[in-house]
Parts: sequence; C-alpha cells; structure tokens
Amino acid sequence: MDSMSSGARGAAQIFNSTVAGFAIAAAWETGALDELEEHGSLSLPEFCTRHDLHLPSVDATMTALASVGVVERHGEKVGTGPEFTEVYRGKAFFHWLTVGCGELFSDMAGVSRNANRVGTFYRRNGAAIGYACRDINAQSFDPVFWQAMEELDFDFTSVADLGCGSGGRLAQIARRYPKVRGTGIDIAADALRDAVAEAGTAGLGDRLEFIEGDVMELRPDARLESVEVLTCFMMGHDFWPRENCVASLRRLREVFPGVRRFLLGDTARTEGMADRDKPVFTLAFETAHDLMGVYLPTLGEWEDVFEESGWKCVGVRPVQVPADSVIFELA
Amino acid sequence: MDSMSSGARGAAQIFNSTVAGFAIAAAWETGALDELEEHGSLSLPEFCTRHDLHLPSVDATMTALASVGVVERHGEKVGTGPEFTEVYRGKAFFHWLTVGCGELFSDMAGVSRNANRVGTFYRRNGAAIGYACRDINAQSFDPVFWQAMEELDFDFTSVADLGCGSGGRLAQIARRYPKVRGTGIDIAADALRDAVAEAGTAGLGDRLEFIEGDVMELRPDARLESVEVLTCFMMGHDFWPRENCVASLRRLREVFPGVRRFLLGDTARTEGMADRDKPVFTLAFETAHDLMGVYLPTLGEWEDVFEESGWKCVGVRPVQVPADSVIFELA
Repeated sequence: MDSMSSGARGAAQIFNSTVAGFAIAAAWETGALDELEEHGSLSLPEFCTRHDLHLPSVDATMTALASVGVVERHGEKVGTGPEFTEVYRGKAFFHWLTVGCGELFSDMAGVSRNANRVGTFYRRNGAAIGYACRDINAQSFDPVFWQAMEELDFDFTSVADLGCGSGGRLAQIARRYPKVRGTGIDIAADALRDAVAEAGTAGLGDRLEFIEGDVMELRPDARLESVEVLTCFMMGHDFWPRENCVASLRRLREVFPGVRRFLLGDTARTEGMADRDKPVFTLAFETAHDLMGVYLPTLGEWEDVFEESGWKCVGVRPVQVPADSVIFELA
Repeated sequence: MDSMSSGARGAAQIFNSTVAGFAIAAAWETGALDELEEHGSLSLPEFCTRHDLHLPSVDATMTALASVGVVERHGEKVGTGPEFTEVYRGKAFFHWLTVGCGELFSDMAGVSRNANRVGTFYRRNGAAIGYACRDINAQSFDPVFWQAMEELDFDFTSVADLGCGSGGRLAQIARRYPKVRGTGIDIAADALRDAVAEAGTAGLGDRLEFIEGDVMELRPDARLESVEVLTCFMMGHDFWPRENCVASLRRLREVFPGVRRFLLGDTARTEGMADRDKPVFTLAFETAHDLMGVYLPTLGEWEDVFEESGWKCVGVRPVQVPADSVIFELA
C-alpha cells in the first residue's frame, strides 16, 4: 500500500467495501456470520464441506470481508475482525441493500431517467426483503415492541396485525398471550398461504385468522370490530403522502371501532443529518424510496398527522437502529 | 456522529460505500461524473432538466456519493470531493462490479452452494460489461498498447484481433494505419453485427472483416494466413487452465503462421497481496472469477506457458491499473 496514494487508497476502500457489502449478505445466508458470532472463528474447508459449499467462492467471500476488517484470515482459519460486531448487528441491512434491492440499485441510472418511469419500472426481490425484514424486526423493533405490549394498561383478547406478511409477529403474540386471538391482513396472497400453513404447524390454527386485503382500502368487517390492539410495522410510510395517510388512518378508526391501542412502528426520513454521518441503513432506505418514487415522511410529518386522523399519540418509543425509527402508541 | 461508536462508524462506512458503489456507476451513466470532471461542479435541477432525469433519484445518487467524499453538496450545487479524482479514474470498475456483475454478486450465496453449480448457474449483464470494458481499455490498456504498436520494428499490413467484440480496437488500428487491413474474431454474433455496421459507418468496411468463431477452437483459414500482428485483450484468461492454454496458444501458431508479433493484454490473479491492500478492481475481478469457477492464472503462470506453446516472450509491458495487468509481446 506504500505505493498507493491516499486518494487511490480512498477509492480502493470504497470499492472493496462495495464488494464486502455483497459478501456480508452472502456470509449471513450461508451461515458463516452466525458461526463466527457464536464461535469466534471457523475453518474454511471444514465449513464448506459441512454445508456443501464451493470452497473458492466462500474463500473469495471471506477475502472480501477481510479487505475491510470484518474478518481476519490466517491460512484456512477465519476469525472475527475489528468491524465484525457492528457489521453482524447490521447484517440484515446489507442483505436488504445488495440482495433484496440489488436489482433496483444496479439500475439506478435507468430508474433516474424520466422516460423510463412508467409502468413497472423497477424490480426488487420480495422474498429476500422478507428474509432481511424478519431479522431487522427481531434486532431493532421487537425489543421495543414487546416492552410496549407488556406495558399496555388494559387486558385484551383480540389483536390485528396490518401488513402481517407470513404471520411471524402474530404467532409470537399468540404464543406469549395464550388467551389472545389474532387476525393478520396483507395484500400478498403468497405470504398469507405461508402464514396459514405455519400457524397450523405451530398449533395456532384455531386462534389465528388471515385476511387478504389492501390495508389502505379496508372496509367495515364484523371480524374486525372487536379488535382491541392493532399493530403495524415497517409499512406505515406506504400510507403517505399526507392526504392519503390522513384518510387511511381515519378509515382504520372506522374499521376497528374497538381498538384501544395502535402500535405503529416505522422508519422515517431523517432530517438535517450530514451526508457523511449517516448510520447503517439510512442512506439505502432513503435512496431506494427516492428511486421508487415512494414518499417517505419525517418523524415531524408523522406526528403532525395523528390528531387530524382521529388518533391521539400517547407515546413515542424510539428504536435505536435504523435512525429515526419509532413505535408510535396511538389511542 | 459523536454519538456513534467507532465500531458503528466503521460499519456505516462500509454500508454507505456499498450504496456509493452503485451510485458511482449510475452517475457515470447519466453523465454527471463527466460533467463534474469537466466543470468541477453542476447544478442539480439544471442538470436534471437538461437530461430529463428524475430529480429525487439524482439527488439521492449525489447524497450517496457525498456520504463517502466523492462529491460535496452545497444546496442544489454539487462539487467534487476529496475522493473524486481517483473514483473518476476507476468509474468503469465500479460499473463492472455493480451493474455488469450485479446479479452475480447479489447471488453470491446461491452461487456458493455446490448443489446450484450446474448448468447456467449465474447471470451477468453482457452489454454493461462491454460498456465498462471500453472505458477500462481506453484508460488502462490503450496507452500501453499504442506504445507497443508504435515500437514494432517491422512494417505490417494485416492485423487480427481475437475477441474483437464490436470492433473498436480494429477500427482504431485501421484509422491509425491507413494501409492496414484488419480481421476481427469473436464468438458473439450480436457484437459482430455492431462491428460490421460501425465499420461501414466509419468508411472502413472495405478494410475490416469479421469472422464469427471461438478463438479457442480456430481452424486453419486462408484469410488468416497472412496476418502479421495479432492482438488479444482481456480474454486471455479464458484460455486456461494451463493444459488448455498451451493447446490454444499452439493452435494460434498454426492458424496464424505469418504472425510476427502477438500483443496479449490481460489482468492476472495477484499473489501475496494483503487482503486490506487490494487496489480498485482486483478484489471484484478475482471474486467474480472464483464465483463463476473460471481459472485465473497469475503472471508467473502466464510467463511459464509461452515457451511450451511455441511462442517467445520478447517483452512484458506493465499496465498500472488494474493490478498485475500486462501486455505480453510474443514472437
């Protein structure tokens, strides 16, 4: 590196970090990151044999991680590097970026041309985004969510989850609160089929119900009238822009007349953060929504919309990562 | 950033660099990088209007570049940042990685599973790779190539380019040497159609001929017997592994009996370079070939193969970037 100017070193650092961004996602999927987290090191040939993996590919993956200090290599042995802990914590965000949204970001130039922004002008990998979001939920929102649930100052027997996906959150609620019945609503029929199957396997089939529908277009439904706790995670920004959000939140008041608490968890657009100070995820999350043309409200914009929509915000619980993520407690 | 630990800062740096890796490719494609290189700054709204681009998308692209110091933003004005010069020099390598090979890298985990490595197990964007390689050629190999051509110590009237693609190199040779006739050989029929069309447009149709064929499987052909100068760039590693390479190089001696000089330019696998010291491109180039299962020889392995193949290496001209790139002069 002595022969490399500091400018060349900076460019190389950006370049190698990009390769590493892909490699982090891959090393998570193959199980290598979890094994390093658990044991602190792994033997490459043994790991590849055990998981039937192509040694040169996994070796290259580890070289990419080593180039930016996520791991350190000593011959065939791979150990954790100085960046491992924080990268492991953020692994799902890297996966969201390079696998879930890889195609969108690869076509950033094409998507930037107004002439191309008609019809279906971008593609993302929905299954991969779901995979990453489960970990993001577990790492980021869940600890705050369960605390909010524990602190509810009333008893409840009916919960509905908006944008329930494959029903993971509802199943956890049902397990934790044995008297509760749950209803999941999502627009993705595939995910709901998984949800029904998984609820059955888990012996929760008689307590969980799933309804295919657009959360923004719900109509009064006898099955929803008795719901007391409403949850909605990582989809609230889809309600926006403002006018639509007010209408959607108002409609939820009508469709769920018995709701006493609405736990709305989402990541907002940051404000006034210097370009060079953005923490993991923020830059990709905001860039992706700009590319897709999806409005992303700030926390201030969110707080300004509740009263007009007939809800009262009785609490705002901050979520540490991603930046500007919160769970609003609405009554 | 004060509230961010140094570990979190490292992970954020890797994350934002990954977003920037995509953004560099996009900013090159939309013309923003060239404009910044030429004028030192640009006005975002004016630039977007002039090129009919979606302002929020281009704004997000610039934010990504600013997050790692490639540009600096002052309101609507974007100027070059401390990393600009080296990143601009390497722009095509970023494009090769995030656009040309984006799909391959996104599926790094899938490609690593032996069970998946059958049939066509990866995809790359050939057109995008061609786009990047033209710039890589122009920036990296061409200055060294033209010097080698100028220093040839004999007159020549017939040149053949192996793996000619859309014929750019041959057209340049024909323009520079008005008495020379050129023959291009490539396996890609699409690229050859472009080559024929472009040669016609350039008024070189009567001096350039294109043959569809596999360079590794060429048979004696009267049209090739009189060729005196043979060129081959960025495909030599496809001749490998060693046994195949010896056979291919020997066959070239037979198919081109009149050749006096063979200029073979390629990038080799680096040896003994510390993981954290890899310059732009090296890591991605080697990782991609490991993922694809394509053998990549080192410079030492290349030099060891010529004599056995019936060629004499009379010169090795180093190319500065990418690392371990050279033009071999074979006689």
